Amino acid sequence: MEEKILELIEQRKFSVLKAMLSDMNAADIALIFEEIDEKDIPVVFRILPKELAADVFVEMDSDMQQLLIEAFSDKELREVMDELFMDDTVDIIDEMPATVAKRILKQTDANTRRMINQLLAYPDDSAGSIMTTEYIDLKKDMTVDMAFDRIRKIGFDTETIYACYVTDNSRKLLGIVSLKDLLLNPKDEVISNIMNENVIFVNTLDDKEKVANDFEKYDLLAMPVVDKENRLVGIVTVDDAIDVMKEEVTEDIEKMAAILPSEHSYFKTGVFETFKARIPWLLLLMISATFTGAIISGFEEKLTIYAGLIAFIPMLMDTGGNSGSQASVTVIRSISLGDIEFSDILRVLWKEIRVAFCCSICLAAVNAIKLFLVDYLMLKTFRGDPHAFAEIGIVCLTLFCTVIVAKIVGCSLPILAKKLGFDPAVMASPLITTIVDAISLIIYFSFASAILGA
Amino acid sequence: MEEKILELIEQRKFSVLKAMLSDMNAADIALIFEEIDEKDIPVVFRILPKELAADVFVEMDSDMQQLLIEAFSDKELREVMDELFMDDTVDIIDEMPATVAKRILKQTDANTRRMINQLLAYPDDSAGSIMTTEYIDLKKDMTVDMAFDRIRKIGFDTETIYACYVTDNSRKLLGIVSLKDLLLNPKDEVISNIMNENVIFVNTLDDKEKVANDFEKYDLLAMPVVDKENRLVGIVTVDDAIDVMKEEVTEDIEKMAAILPSEHSYFKTGVFETFKARIPWLLLLMISATFTGAIISGFEEKLTIYAGLIAFIPMLMDTGGNSGSQASVTVIRSISLGDIEFSDILRVLWKEIRVAFCCSICLAAVNAIKLFLVDYLMLKTFRGDPHAFAEIGIVCLTLFCTVIVAKIVGCSLPILAKKLGFDPAVMASPLITTIVDAISLIIYFSFASAILGA
Repeated sequence: MEEKILELIEQRKFSVLKAMLSDMNAADIALIFEEIDEKDIPVVFRILPKELAADVFVEMDSDMQQLLIEAFSDKELREVMDELFMDDTVDIIDEMPATVAKRILKQTDANTRRMINQLLAYPDDSAGSIMTTEYIDLKKDMTVDMAFDRIRKIGFDTETIYACYVTDNSRKLLGIVSLKDLLLNPKDEVISNIMNENVIFVNTLDDKEKVANDFEKYDLLAMPVVDKENRLVGIVTVDDAIDVMKEEVTEDIEKMAAILPSEHSYFKTGVFETFKARIPWLLLLMISATFTGAIISGFEEKLTIYAGLIAFIPMLMDTGGNSGSQASVTVIRSISLGDIEFSDILRVLWKEIRVAFCCSICLAAVNAIKLFLVDYLMLKTFRGDPHAFAEIGIVCLTLFCTVIVAKIVGCSLPILAKKLGFDPAVMASPLITTIVDAISLIIYFSFASAILGA
Repeated sequence: MEEKILELIEQRKFSVLKAMLSDMNAADIALIFEEIDEKDIPVVFRILPKELAADVFVEMDSDMQQLLIEAFSDKELREVMDELFMDDTVDIIDEMPATVAKRILKQTDANTRRMINQLLAYPDDSAGSIMTTEYIDLKKDMTVDMAFDRIRKIGFDTETIYACYVTDNSRKLLGIVSLKDLLLNPKDEVISNIMNENVIFVNTLDDKEKVANDFEKYDLLAMPVVDKENRLVGIVTVDDAIDVMKEEVTEDIEKMAAILPSEHSYFKTGVFETFKARIPWLLLLMISATFTGAIISGFEEKLTIYAGLIAFIPMLMDTGGNSGSQASVTVIRSISLGDIEFSDILRVLWKEIRVAFCCSICLAAVNAIKLFLVDYLMLKTFRGDPHAFAEIGIVCLTLFCTVIVAKIVGCSLPILAKKLGFDPAVMASPLITTIVDAISLIIYFSFASAILGA
């Protein structure tokens, strides 16, 4: 398909191309544009039917949008912008350099311009920043038939007509009627009799993550957004909520891997930008690991005597780190799904301690068997070591205690972080690993001192 | 709110309670049921209005559903089941023990029972397993007015009426009409003129993750599902697609933390079940870390001479591990978002090498400065060590090389895993850490041997 289209462009067979593209989906066409030679992009874009062109435009990334806007005449620009929904227009302007943004705004009428500027002013992570201002509003004394007339009149320009909002004269939200309710009720029924007054809504300044979670919880198709005076100012549609979910998950996963969240997709993020997102945590964790080094230094002299102990350091550190990050990642995900709250901390601890106990018994046992059978009997790596059994004991005891401590630290830090207003996702593997490393070495050397004699 | 309700139950004020619950949302009521005393649950459930009761039932977890089903009379059970959509019924039956499932099936008519059994047979991760069989089907020679009649007739029992599907007499899918199209077109317009023939659909056996991704890509509200003969057999609605997205993300995050995916939420998963999900990777990684230990053992004698080198092992291992997991997690997420494919491997490598170069220069420089200023000059930890500068050089060189190798390993393993048909998420932090640990020690000891003399 894609090759065929690129071939048609090459051969300048635009009428065949037009027929082909007209049958395709906007999202798929936008993907194909990424493969088209830069100089051909405006030409190919111009052969798309007007409405499809606008849909394709919305699906493109901001670099390509800018390229097109710069190639557009003022008339073309106005035509594309006229087809867009308000939230998409705002998103596009938000991504453009100031001069391009100004040119777009110049093509809109005063009313739209005021609306756009208002939407641009909402904080980046707020409900206001993802809402659109085009929705169906009804009055409570309308009949179903009157409601249908209104939908037919303004429905072309609203992103969804499936949820209709009933407001009073000061735009206060009174209730919600779904198009399904309208359709399944008699034509002369009055809206106030069929509207649902128990409306789920958000405030313009609410976190957009909360909005996305509510979509999932209540199975919504659209969510009304009200201002401080409880006046309806816009709606968020489910497709935008899904985009927020996706972004938030990516952000959480990045934070869990000690990366500062980035705005763009992998290849759209420059090398230096990626570097800047990764280096702060790497530096911080490198410096923190110095403490672990200091713990080893403090035990250095004894390590030169019991050199066999050094070889177990990576295994103890890694197993502790893995155990801790299993607990922390599970808890972080459960917090973001709303399954765990601060009040659950004791229940979480009690569960993790029991899980940790099972894990540590199992790990210590397997390790003891492996050290005895494989290392001691088969490979004879302990040959001539008079402390062989003491060392095996120390390693297994340390493993046992480290896993339990790691799980406790791993499950409690994210919950505490959340309580203190930090992002729990930051308390994931890397930070937990650094903390658990230090703890496991302290445990290891304490057992070594106690058993082998200080 | 919640306390008030629990108080009303305590005081047996059921009529006040009924009025209060009737105004609430099903998802919120289901959450409150979790707090109600087990013996009161059937009583409180019975005071809910019939339709709301069914909605609340769907939102409950399977333990509570089972408790209620066991308390229901056959008549009550039939009433609740009659209100449910097919996909919810199937989900519930799927979670119940065999005897309960049989009892539910006995309350349904032969036709429904056949349908349920058919849906139960689809593999767990297939589109068929999440679809519902109740949708609006139209014929292409109907007028808009006839379509509305049909929607009014069967709309009560379908999960969505906003997407209508046009089929021929053998149920082959011909096109799709949205309710918006129907409403904004004249009443005597024929469906075949307004239907969109470029339908996005999936096969019953397609992976449900693909279905969820398509919802996001094409901004859909519902997706038709066809069988091998291209006959329409059901639809997936956006709320179910969102649930799949959520599950898949949780599964990915768990895999990245070396946990086998679990089916239930945190507190619903038993201690032993959690143990079973965590222990396999812990064991595997513990055994793998033995190789790292073996590398240290091989260098043991020299380490007793240059004991100062031991203290840097945790820092080198951790920084390598963190650098590698940053790259691997970024790449894993980009693969699951569809931003990176196997053919991109060279582009990814080229980007990661440049990022790694920036990171390693920066880390090595900071480390050199810190070791010289803080450790050498201020703390004088190298006091009396004739090899102080050589050791600082070895540590910084190792850091430099380890970070580069870690990023290369971290970014390429997930892509290779995907190519070989494994889940890339498994190639996340823990496995990368273990691999990078070994590599970083080999680099470290090689530099040490070369510079300090073998």
